[in-house]
Amino acid sequence: MRIALDAMGGDFAPEAIVKGAVMAAHELKNDEVILLIGKEDIIHSLLKENGYTGSNISVMHAPQVIEMGEHPTKALTQKPESSIAIGYGLLKAQKADAFCSAGNTGAMLVGAMFSVKATEGVLRPSIASFVPKLSGGFGVMLDVGANADCKPEVLEQFGELGSIYAKYVLDIQNPKVGLMNLGEEEGKGTVNTQAAHQRLKVNKDINFIGNIEGRDLFNDKADVIVCDGYTGNIILKMAESLYEILHEKGMTDPFFEKFNYEAAGGSPILGINGNAVIGHGVSSPRAVCNMVLQAQKMAASKLSERFKKNFSS
Amino acid sequence: MRIALDAMGGDFAPEAIVKGAVMAAHELKNDEVILLIGKEDIIHSLLKENGYTGSNISVMHAPQVIEMGEHPTKALTQKPESSIAIGYGLLKAQKADAFCSAGNTGAMLVGAMFSVKATEGVLRPSIASFVPKLSGGFGVMLDVGANADCKPEVLEQFGELGSIYAKYVLDIQNPKVGLMNLGEEEGKGTVNTQAAHQRLKVNKDINFIGNIEGRDLFNDKADVIVCDGYTGNIILKMAESLYEILHEKGMTDPFFEKFNYEAAGGSPILGINGNAVIGHGVSSPRAVCNMVLQAQKMAASKLSERFKKNFSS
Repeated sequence: MRIALDAMGGDFAPEAIVKGAVMAAHELKNDEVILLIGKEDIIHSLLKENGYTGSNISVMHAPQVIEMGEHPTKALTQKPESSIAIGYGLLKAQKADAFCSAGNTGAMLVGAMFSVKATEGVLRPSIASFVPKLSGGFGVMLDVGANADCKPEVLEQFGELGSIYAKYVLDIQNPKVGLMNLGEEEGKGTVNTQAAHQRLKVNKDINFIGNIEGRDLFNDKADVIVCDGYTGNIILKMAESLYEILHEKGMTDPFFEKFNYEAAGGSPILGINGNAVIGHGVSSPRAVCNMVLQAQKMAASKLSERFKKNFSS
Repeated sequence: MRIALDAMGGDFAPEAIVKGAVMAAHELKNDEVILLIGKEDIIHSLLKENGYTGSNISVMHAPQVIEMGEHPTKALTQKPESSIAIGYGLLKAQKADAFCSAGNTGAMLVGAMFSVKATEGVLRPSIASFVPKLSGGFGVMLDVGANADCKPEVLEQFGELGSIYAKYVLDIQNPKVGLMNLGEEEGKGTVNTQAAHQRLKVNKDINFIGNIEGRDLFNDKADVIVCDGYTGNIILKMAESLYEILHEKGMTDPFFEKFNYEAAGGSPILGINGNAVIGHGVSSPRAVCNMVLQAQKMAASKLSERFKKNFSS
């Protein structure tokens, strides 16, 4: 298995990325390789600095870098030799089983749509995020920002995409799907969520448990939380800021520690023909390590093939 | 000044309500009276039990009660002698300067629309909620559930309604209005929030500072947070649940203590011809006391008249 990793993406790249790769390498099996993509001289010297001499990391040269502030589509067109373009090229050619980057989020999304493309039948691929549960473990929420507006049929598909992810990557049997709403009752919500509720209710591929509310985010009502990207993004950023506030106040607790983005490492893109994970811009080595391990698990569970199978039927 | 208070509304009514009224009565001036509406024999005996003999509370009999689970419109039609119907009757006849209840939220909303009605020019009255700020004090967020879907022109008006509330009740000079969104940049968001941004930007009656994100809820970027009722409701319930989680874990802090609904006591209805506050169903005496004091402040600052003046021009 080969996991491509953008060595140049992220606020602390390439140092933090290479460090994170070395951490992850120690967790991999013999036949699992991290393919570090970026300026090879810099990467080699950083690997040396970190004392890595193992065989779980190899390096692929990419002379160009897409910076954090660049316009995604323009940057991808103008920089075909960038680490993100090359990473997706490898994913498309099946020379990598997964690709992850803590770089330009927009470029990671656009790159996915341009190269491996959406799974046939999937209306809108989605970025998912982990939701820590009070009882332990994580749930998954989608979308968290790729699609601000979502039609009911798109929200319905998020239920399927999230269920597949929860089942095969989070190891949750028969994951419970909840629709984020302003009330539990079926008739509550926006015109869109009301219509989505009706679609989710009759979808036989998922275990829909109905509407959930903002107070249910961290309890066990739902493993898969379905919402549009506008709502998911607000929830995610609010949770992140609360983690920071608690941290600054010196209030620590194992549950709230799971709010730390480092725990999951990155947000998977669901509903594309490949396994891709987007890391946080400020990714630390620990976050990069966890992002790689998440990508490894997605690849090992053949996630993108499962999407394909689900939506082709 | 007369503040009407529904003695029968709320999970712990009438005991908690009467207790809360007695607490509030001690804070009022000589000419400020709480009008307790409900079954008078019960109220009188509870006032006696609580040892209240002052002149800041009077009682008005209401033989009927709208229960928490009743259908709002049906209940109001079938129970004209209920405490909520009588309370709004007093507000409409200007025999009360404010009305508050911890009872059936739907009936409180529908009652407002049937009796005092929306301020002329206001498309959709809104329920607002307090947002504790890290730097101290509170901001105000609206809508938090009265209107799931909100057109851009409705969101624009929320900016005005919230500004008036922030200025006259929260004593914030030139309150900063922020539009809750998934990114700071002007072009970000849903079709609706993008259009609302353009309207808010050119509205000369408010101090619009642009988009804010989920992470800005508790910082000083905005005093007035504008969003649709679906989003506001999710944010509010998520914050409430986090307060409960912290509480259960024994993690206390003055900032998070302000998440307690008791601190504000209730959510004002903004954009109607009268001052009305809806309390939490589980309202404790402390919450009821603060709800009455909030209603007192709304009445003292002539809030509903200010709405009228703003939207008539």
